[in-house]
Amino acid sequence: MDPVYLVSPSSAVPDDAPWDLALSQLRLQGWHPVVDRDARKRHQRFAGTDRQRAAAICRAAAQAQARMVMMTRGGYGWMRLLPHLDLDALADSGKFWVGFSDATAFHLAMLGHCAAQTWAGPAMLDDFARESPDETTCACLRDAYQGALKALGFTVRGQTRGQPSLDERGTLWGGNLSMVCAMLGSRWLPKAPSGGILFLEDVGEHPYRIERMLLQLLYNGVIDAQKAVLLGEFNQYRLSERDGGYDLKHAIAWLRKQTRVPILEGLPFGHTPVKLTLPHGRRIGLATEARTAYLLLEDA
Amino acid sequence: MDPVYLVSPSSAVPDDAPWDLALSQLRLQGWHPVVDRDARKRHQRFAGTDRQRAAAICRAAAQAQARMVMMTRGGYGWMRLLPHLDLDALADSGKFWVGFSDATAFHLAMLGHCAAQTWAGPAMLDDFARESPDETTCACLRDAYQGALKALGFTVRGQTRGQPSLDERGTLWGGNLSMVCAMLGSRWLPKAPSGGILFLEDVGEHPYRIERMLLQLLYNGVIDAQKAVLLGEFNQYRLSERDGGYDLKHAIAWLRKQTRVPILEGLPFGHTPVKLTLPHGRRIGLATEARTAYLLLEDA
Repeated sequence: MDPVYLVSPSSAVPDDAPWDLALSQLRLQGWHPVVDRDARKRHQRFAGTDRQRAAAICRAAAQAQARMVMMTRGGYGWMRLLPHLDLDALADSGKFWVGFSDATAFHLAMLGHCAAQTWAGPAMLDDFARESPDETTCACLRDAYQGALKALGFTVRGQTRGQPSLDERGTLWGGNLSMVCAMLGSRWLPKAPSGGILFLEDVGEHPYRIERMLLQLLYNGVIDAQKAVLLGEFNQYRLSERDGGYDLKHAIAWLRKQTRVPILEGLPFGHTPVKLTLPHGRRIGLATEARTAYLLLEDA
Repeated sequence: MDPVYLVSPSSAVPDDAPWDLALSQLRLQGWHPVVDRDARKRHQRFAGTDRQRAAAICRAAAQAQARMVMMTRGGYGWMRLLPHLDLDALADSGKFWVGFSDATAFHLAMLGHCAAQTWAGPAMLDDFARESPDETTCACLRDAYQGALKALGFTVRGQTRGQPSLDERGTLWGGNLSMVCAMLGSRWLPKAPSGGILFLEDVGEHPYRIERMLLQLLYNGVIDAQKAVLLGEFNQYRLSERDGGYDLKHAIAWLRKQTRVPILEGLPFGHTPVKLTLPHGRRIGLATEARTAYLLLEDA
């Protein structure tokens, strides 16, 4: 069993969360959970005060029990912690930091502030508090942890007509679209990576809001500066009659007209059971062949 | 009767909107409505295609019937139009452009791109489709239009302890918080005004999202660069048990700890009946005396 250290830098774990189920599923997947002493704390909507949560992150970096540090859940709270943390020390800890959603703030700060690599991947409650955790999600996390992740393929969805085959190299970065937009231009990410491969997902955002955020990236020059944009899952929103048929497809089709940068849909990443574990901040390769895309992790 | 030209650059006017009520209330307030021919068009969720809505804005700038150009409503759509418009020509038109919410994108672009002044104030359906339009809203719009707006006072809400009296000068700018965040750093607003007086409002955003947006401004250095921040109304959100008591007050109290810039609550502006008409992009004075704040429009 490989140990995994569990921390809660974002929202509080609800009292009725299927905590024990997540622990036992982690064990069934070959992980030995080591729970930070404040992982189930509560202060307002957060899992402890800013200082308590920052201290937990420092403990996670300093402890010698586990190389992997996994977030229990997302929500909101990471952005508040950044001024309290020595990001260089976190980078130097050599830990395998993994999380997604709100953890995007952390990933971006680690990249923007100290060019450090982290992992965009599962979180304890989102991905293991299930009767059957997704096999791909579990296997991909395991491979990433063991350094055995060489390539990841996925089927490109939606429009591919007119898109030439790709064979690109660039820094893989991004994550949750709301968090990318919130961090853009901040002192933690003063300049967005250029020549990168930007991946994005979001949850509970209406397509017009997704479009508005993509427009923010476009008008900031971020999209045109990328080699490619990979869209993961955008879900749990509600369309209404007033949309007059406007939906996410229209938003993406519209965006495609505003840029020459290839936009690929279908990356298995987001608030869904199937979730790749992706090396955030690493230079990777991206190749496409008809409707298949490959992320080449060791080839760049 | 002073003519007012009505355009729909954002979302479509719903079929069941109280359109006639708004027209008759505008007349009762001494305005003669001139409706752009596309003001009630519909394309998906928008009031026409991007080209149609941009053409309507050009018509509004070119027509000789009315000096005031008012938006029928907000929603979403202004950001899409910006590349289609000659903003300098709009600034040179000498029109009294008034709107709020989604129109913040337009206000910011006019300021950021051509240092032009516009008006943050009422919109047709939000403010006149009512049995009794707010008297302050109506009088303030009238005064602004007639050049008779010299000073605006309001009662400061919330915490004022420890805040010294203010006597500042700076460019008044801002509007809808979501739109300020979306426009920040874009080619329409490459650099946020510094030494300004930033006003903000929003609707339907949970306090943690408001905090996240304020954090975006803070971490971008925008808040610390201001003389003051004026908070208008933030409403129509829903707290839940999971907030553990966290609410907008906590978010604002927390923000105040992160900056020395005075943050004043209670500006009568936002998605509410009472709405001042504010000269967006003009250098104004701001003075406080105990719980009263004054915006000095002719004094700067």
